[in-house]
Amino acid sequence: MIVTTKYRVKFFDTDTFGIVHHSNYIRWFETGRVEFLRELGIDLNEMMSDGILFPIVDIGAKFHAPAKFDDVLEIVTTAEALTKAKMKFNYVIRKCGEEKILAEGTSTNVFTNDGKICRLPDKYFSKIVKGLE
Amino acid sequence: MIVTTKYRVKFFDTDTFGIVHHSNYIRWFETGRVEFLRELGIDLNEMMSDGILFPIVDIGAKFHAPAKFDDVLEIVTTAEALTKAKMKFNYVIRKCGEEKILAEGTSTNVFTNDGKICRLPDKYFSKIVKGLE
Amino acid sequence: MIVTTKYRVKFFDTDTFGIVHHSNYIRWFETGRVEFLRELGIDLNEMMSDGILFPIVDIGAKFHAPAKFDDVLEIVTTAEALTKAKMKFNYVIRKCGEEKILAEGTSTNVFTNDGKICRLPDKYFSKIVKGLE
Amino acid sequence: MIVTTKYRVKFFDTDTFGIVHHSNYIRWFETGRVEFLRELGIDLNEMMSDGILFPIVDIGAKFHAPAKFDDVLEIVTTAEALTKAKMKFNYVIRKCGEEKILAEGTSTNVFTNDGKICRLPDKYFSKIVKGLE
Repeated sequence: MIVTTKYRVKFFDTDTFGIVHHSNYIRWFETGRVEFLRELGIDLNEMMSDGILFPIVDIGAKFHAPAKFDDVLEIVTTAEALTKAKMKFNYVIRKCGEEKILAEGTSTNVFTNDGKICRLPDKYFSKIVKGLE
Repeated sequence: MIVTTKYRVKFFDTDTFGIVHHSNYIRWFETGRVEFLRELGIDLNEMMSDGILFPIVDIGAKFHAPAKFDDVLEIVTTAEALTKAKMKFNYVIRKCGEEKILAEGTSTNVFTNDGKICRLPDKYFSKIVKGLE
Repeated sequence: MIVTTKYRVKFFDTDTFGIVHHSNYIRWFETGRVEFLRELGIDLNEMMSDGILFPIVDIGAKFHAPAKFDDVLEIVTTAEALTKAKMKFNYVIRKCGEEKILAEGTSTNVFTNDGKICRLPDKYFSKIVKGLE
Repeated sequence: MIVTTKYRVKFFDTDTFGIVHHSNYIRWFETGRVEFLRELGIDLNEMMSDGILFPIVDIGAKFHAPAKFDDVLEIVTTAEALTKAKMKFNYVIRKCGEEKILAEGTSTNVFTNDGKICRLPDKYFSKIVKGLE
């Protein structure tokens, strides 16, 4: 599954170099994976109510070209691994309608219950596994 | 009481205009009041453990001149009202060692317990009231 | 003119109290006025290219009730004054489809050219003044 | 060279999970490298005035344990490569006085002049190369 999310760059995303501060791409990766999970029918508030959290354990990003104020970006999210132990996503960010990649990255989340690593219950696993299709 | 807190401007605080984004002053006002309360012996983590929260109900700010990357700022915090019902603080932000005011503002916090407005327990009130001296 | 902008709350907008950090409403007010100006045909990048900047000189906000992760908010922006000297906007933020106001505020921007206060050129004034209709 | 920078966690750094949002570690890595360069006698404002910029091209981070509001962290920055073509730094973040690593990461910056990759002038290179000692 591929989920594309749009975002228009705000003044507060930019820095004194006139471009988006790199830390914001990490935030937009998160937006991408939340929307990916929503497409799969996952309600993160429900998961949190069930006591299942999903801490992020690693991220990586490459920055190829800058985005600027008012640019409309698309965050393209795909899944690399979706198991009962972890979710690993890949992200590509471009300006809408352009080929050139501005930033790309990856992230891994694990699942925890009461602060300990856990296996994702079937109720959720049966939904997220479809993200690999 | 007057509490002065220093802060050096980071790239991620600035925007495409080459200056600090105004929303960050609001964040630094909070830093000022947390340090003001610390000076009074208030441990906000302890207060939170006691179930006392302190939601902010209003803020105001005037922006006179910009701060830039790497400027060392001082946030000068004073109390306008410290009662069992609310805390009202005033803030002035300058570059260290300069007279010119870059930004100034005010904020009001109330106290809540279990989501309802409450009176601040004496344990804390006896400490915070000294901030008016 | 009334311009309504939607925004879904992200994890990075929330804080340890489980609610949106108040500084973010100030950022969303800015999003509201940028979209208001876009509706009037104002391209801020063009204005910046013409050397006209629009620094914010004051803001005020009242916070009535919290927003939480994944809430879909609407930022309702209206103009209080749109002159050659300044833009003053009012903002109301609610959850989409609800009556209750979560936050409301106001802001004033002036116009500058080469760092000095200026009068907004007719090219732009003729457009923004329609925001009062 | 090892440069240690302290930072106390603010409310606005935390999220609804009661912990620091992971994107902030990326910002604190930047704080670490700016302070590392300052120790070497590099004034980034001067470098920018000379037209030398230093865009970040990649980052990576692993998150081992959470930091919370009011924790005092230390960001330990070391250099992996400091050449005329790039700066590669490593970062470790702990609570002050504790052994346990909360987050660690790496970043690479290149040098540009007028938007094009350039070689760092000797004026700066002679200073930064000492960071490898």
